[in-house]
Amino acid sequence: MIIIMSKDVSEDQIGAVVKKIQDLGHEVNISRGTKRIVIGAIGDESKLDPELFDTMPGVEYSMHIVKQYKIVSRESHRQDSVIDVRGIPIGGKQVQIIGGPCSVETQEQMDLAAQQVAAAGCRLMRGGAFKPRTSPYTFQGKGVDGLGIFRKAADKYHLPIVTELMDVRMLDTFLEHDVDVIQIGTRNMQNFDLLKEVGRINKPVILKRGLSATISEWLMAAEYIAAGGNHNIIFCERGIRTFETAYRNVLDVTCVPVLKRETHLPVIIDPSHAGGKAWMVPALARAAIAAGADGLLVEMHPNPCEAWCDADQALNPIELKELMGTLKGIAEIIGRTL
Amino acid sequence: MIIIMSKDVSEDQIGAVVKKIQDLGHEVNISRGTKRIVIGAIGDESKLDPELFDTMPGVEYSMHIVKQYKIVSRESHRQDSVIDVRGIPIGGKQVQIIGGPCSVETQEQMDLAAQQVAAAGCRLMRGGAFKPRTSPYTFQGKGVDGLGIFRKAADKYHLPIVTELMDVRMLDTFLEHDVDVIQIGTRNMQNFDLLKEVGRINKPVILKRGLSATISEWLMAAEYIAAGGNHNIIFCERGIRTFETAYRNVLDVTCVPVLKRETHLPVIIDPSHAGGKAWMVPALARAAIAAGADGLLVEMHPNPCEAWCDADQALNPIELKELMGTLKGIAEIIGRTL
Amino acid sequence: MIIIMSKDVSEDQIGAVVKKIQDLGHEVNISRGTKRIVIGAIGDESKLDPELFDTMPGVEYSMHIVKQYKIVSRESHRQDSVIDVRGIPIGGKQVQIIGGPCSVETQEQMDLAAQQVAAAGCRLMRGGAFKPRTSPYTFQGKGVDGLGIFRKAADKYHLPIVTELMDVRMLDTFLEHDVDVIQIGTRNMQNFDLLKEVGRINKPVILKRGLSATISEWLMAAEYIAAGGNHNIIFCERGIRTFETAYRNVLDVTCVPVLKRETHLPVIIDPSHAGGKAWMVPALARAAIAAGADGLLVEMHPNPCEAWCDADQALNPIELKELMGTLKGIAEIIGRTL
Amino acid sequence: MIIIMSKDVSEDQIGAVVKKIQDLGHEVNISRGTKRIVIGAIGDESKLDPELFDTMPGVEYSMHIVKQYKIVSRESHRQDSVIDVRGIPIGGKQVQIIGGPCSVETQEQMDLAAQQVAAAGCRLMRGGAFKPRTSPYTFQGKGVDGLGIFRKAADKYHLPIVTELMDVRMLDTFLEHDVDVIQIGTRNMQNFDLLKEVGRINKPVILKRGLSATISEWLMAAEYIAAGGNHNIIFCERGIRTFETAYRNVLDVTCVPVLKRETHLPVIIDPSHAGGKAWMVPALARAAIAAGADGLLVEMHPNPCEAWCDADQALNPIELKELMGTLKGIAEIIGRTL
Repeated sequence: MIIIMSKDVSEDQIGAVVKKIQDLGHEVNISRGTKRIVIGAIGDESKLDPELFDTMPGVEYSMHIVKQYKIVSRESHRQDSVIDVRGIPIGGKQVQIIGGPCSVETQEQMDLAAQQVAAAGCRLMRGGAFKPRTSPYTFQGKGVDGLGIFRKAADKYHLPIVTELMDVRMLDTFLEHDVDVIQIGTRNMQNFDLLKEVGRINKPVILKRGLSATISEWLMAAEYIAAGGNHNIIFCERGIRTFETAYRNVLDVTCVPVLKRETHLPVIIDPSHAGGKAWMVPALARAAIAAGADGLLVEMHPNPCEAWCDADQALNPIELKELMGTLKGIAEIIGRTL
Repeated sequence: MIIIMSKDVSEDQIGAVVKKIQDLGHEVNISRGTKRIVIGAIGDESKLDPELFDTMPGVEYSMHIVKQYKIVSRESHRQDSVIDVRGIPIGGKQVQIIGGPCSVETQEQMDLAAQQVAAAGCRLMRGGAFKPRTSPYTFQGKGVDGLGIFRKAADKYHLPIVTELMDVRMLDTFLEHDVDVIQIGTRNMQNFDLLKEVGRINKPVILKRGLSATISEWLMAAEYIAAGGNHNIIFCERGIRTFETAYRNVLDVTCVPVLKRETHLPVIIDPSHAGGKAWMVPALARAAIAAGADGLLVEMHPNPCEAWCDADQALNPIELKELMGTLKGIAEIIGRTL
Repeated sequence: MIIIMSKDVSEDQIGAVVKKIQDLGHEVNISRGTKRIVIGAIGDESKLDPELFDTMPGVEYSMHIVKQYKIVSRESHRQDSVIDVRGIPIGGKQVQIIGGPCSVETQEQMDLAAQQVAAAGCRLMRGGAFKPRTSPYTFQGKGVDGLGIFRKAADKYHLPIVTELMDVRMLDTFLEHDVDVIQIGTRNMQNFDLLKEVGRINKPVILKRGLSATISEWLMAAEYIAAGGNHNIIFCERGIRTFETAYRNVLDVTCVPVLKRETHLPVIIDPSHAGGKAWMVPALARAAIAAGADGLLVEMHPNPCEAWCDADQALNPIELKELMGTLKGIAEIIGRTL
Repeated sequence: MIIIMSKDVSEDQIGAVVKKIQDLGHEVNISRGTKRIVIGAIGDESKLDPELFDTMPGVEYSMHIVKQYKIVSRESHRQDSVIDVRGIPIGGKQVQIIGGPCSVETQEQMDLAAQQVAAAGCRLMRGGAFKPRTSPYTFQGKGVDGLGIFRKAADKYHLPIVTELMDVRMLDTFLEHDVDVIQIGTRNMQNFDLLKEVGRINKPVILKRGLSATISEWLMAAEYIAAGGNHNIIFCERGIRTFETAYRNVLDVTCVPVLKRETHLPVIIDPSHAGGKAWMVPALARAAIAAGADGLLVEMHPNPCEAWCDADQALNPIELKELMGTLKGIAEIIGRTL
């Protein structure tokens, strides 16, 4: 930790800061510059906090110099982590495209979707049984019945399933239905009680980025899961909120190389929610894979026009298949497979 | 709902849209402009959704023309709602300043804080027993014990208590401790399961704005609570996330006149979390009351330097008392009391 | 300047950084922490740049510890600067409200506006002869003729005039018309050639904040003017761009206390452009003065409905007069006059 | 244009709006819904403005239904425009990578850079003679001498040159040096006088997106150039400003498919300024081409560590060459060449 003293600091004020650092069990380095005096606290930084010093007289500001995430950091684990989902690797050389509808509607719809997802070459399937909706008056998902429908449809094609958990009280039900990958949605990225609970189990978790979460907050949210013992975490970028109104969100591809540097965990992208329109999905999906993402969450519906939610962002089965071909080509150019 | 057809739309495409509107039980108005044809769907708009039309051939875009919130809207309830908290009105002529520390620490600290809050002229007290923290390695609050400590301290001075509920499983405990006002924090503004639960009880709820929530999303989140039957909702602005890094968040005072127009419910402001520094609080608090806010949530700690969290944003007791005097003057200038 | 070395830095890499600092004429302090080694460069920081070090092997990142603005900083000039505009002080105890229409339209309109602005108690007048408009197909201002009309109308009521300069080639014309305060608009905050030119003259300059300019960039833009010799600079906040779409921009009142700490120069606020609607102006104007702003730029039009631009954000003369009364009350509460 | 009347509108208020529309030479369509009455103005929408109606009693809000840009719109010109720069096409099947240093430093540096840019396979070269810098105390570019140095270096390798124009008074000098492509920088995207001037000449213009400019504002800025007669406009995305601080800006790849739909003009991307670090450039460059960009502006310096500005974002010659190989592969996968 570094404490920058203000211009007219007194020796007494410096002494007080030095004493506080020493009382907290750290050593001190003082650098007397021409404009500012900088005090360094030497020792385990995670035990200190800028708040401890910012209120002291004579302190201009203080800051950590090391990132506060540990288990999820690349610094703590140099090699890429590859997460195994029923034999399918996420985060390795092979790119994974997770396809499926926004929401579980009927057994027929899910059976058809599963068949089409598998036919397109996807190895995992997505679908929502519990839907977070802005309005209380719109369709909120099929609920527990939806989990059963999804499980049945996906099993026929040996597709592990990915579905969103919103309510901590539903975790047992998810485990009973043997959900393969639990998705934490963008609105719950900092629902810390939920993060702690999925940190206690051993299922892979897709942690979507909050709509305006910084990279650092996102990594700290993952640290909540990891601190509980569950290191099977997959980051999923899904567009961030900005000033732009011409599209729903702005897909932040820069987060891919940055996360790859900061963490050993896999990073995937959801191009469907980012843009919010099906016609934007192929361009965004290509950009994601080209940028180095380990996979995608892509919405596909057997008949997008009749989807019960987010109808205008789902690809149809033919579009998904075509996209898979292009993505395969891009993956190979950068030394990966699909 | 209005559906704007694209430039080269065919009569068949228009016919399909007209048929869909009629099938959904609405009437149709067609306006043939020089550049675009606009189709109006006449009837209960809440039964329609832009997604239903945006995927149809020949449709450029479609939009609601009426806001989607109902119970919380000023349109449904012209008079200001005044919420009663154990005899103290929020949302009426009298402005309420809710003071207290960031977090419950010890019985001594809370006893002292309660005495000081009351002495400064505040009629309600705030304090956190459960703290949402960015890092899993920092103090997470005293938990259930904290509720007891808080209750005991506040009762001595007849101060109703305001405290944050993060986990739906804790609601019963909050009711057992007879928490007077339940606060839903910024990270949980769209934790819909939590909103539904507090919608089922009758306690006043302070709904903080999400860090990057639009006014419309915030009103819809309140609608989740209201739809369950609980109309005792107080909006609390606490700073929004922008590009600016010189302060923690940007306090959005414009939301005050705008919410006052859109909803009949009270609007308060938290100047402490907005700026993140105690020295900014007086200016922001004055701006909030001058803009027409119905109250404030202000952090005060008996000894800010030793606060266990957010130390640099708490006022000390003397600063709070001085601020109350200034706010009283401003309130009177605009025809209110404090 | 502080250079934070990466975890696995070698002694050779440290040596190279030390040598570079010494070659640039600075002294060195090395602080060897448990996780990171931090190198301090001691001397005139403005001669160093993070870029000089960030590309060197073994460097994690580097940063200035002192702000880069000088002349405009409070650190260089402790007392508040009061700017004199033909005898009217801006930045002192007295708050100044600068009223007038968005744009100069006709002599009649400006004569009437000047009379009403003076009658309301304003001591300066605003009006645009050159208008920056998003579309090339809308009214672009009366141009040079507008300056003459404005000058004539304002002189009758002894009101100094404030008007926007967009094109560096028009500066001489502004001087010929003896414009009292030159306004640099939000879109030109970083038009550095324009800033340099107004830095060479001695007229007061209102520097509006760029739509997404940070406080630091804004202060640096002012430093461009000040570096040329013109220290008569007034900062004007006019709303920033965020994700919110319910109003045009978000008025950032937090910038008032923060600028007051960082700079000795006056700070005013434009509540009209911020919200974009006349009905929001009173609440925002009150908040601005309560927060400590030294004045306001407020739009008033003799007949808002017929204004040639921004019709929906102008107050009418009666509304302006009423607002002045309220603002006077608030100013007095916080120890100022109006 | 559509005018939505408020809930309790009177017939007189409707009549006034109808009369105003008719007086302005338009026809009227009235749609009486269950909750709102919507009035359509039929005729040339560009002659109307929401401001004309928003101030009228009984009007809730009004809006254009057609986009306000014309010449640059895809609607006015269905085919892709291909811009010819001394025989090199921008916007066609072939992707163009424009390489070169941030700033012109010396003849030796530029000669070497030109040779390396050509050797890597780039067909155009970039370099700044006038540099917009946040601080007035940093290197501001070599100025006019820099243009001569650049011209001489590039001519040896038959590379057309791209360089930034900041000051309208320098346009003649740019023409004298026969600059092949004039770049308008991000800070000047809405410097309307500068846009008008480059609209009067016939040189290709690269129009960089403002740091927080919406797609719509950007297209309108291009319309300023086009309205003057110069249709040789190339859009360049270079990262937008958001809340994220882990990288300089967020590269907005979504703008590529969206602009391709809205305009017939070419779209290129600057991955160097977006991320601000050389190690991010390859991932962003790949994403840009994969998303469908027509080209890139990439910084390369013969010796990045010694660059006079933006040292940490320039690739070295070897990195540029490697990147060109990967981009060629991606271009071919999506049916283009490089």
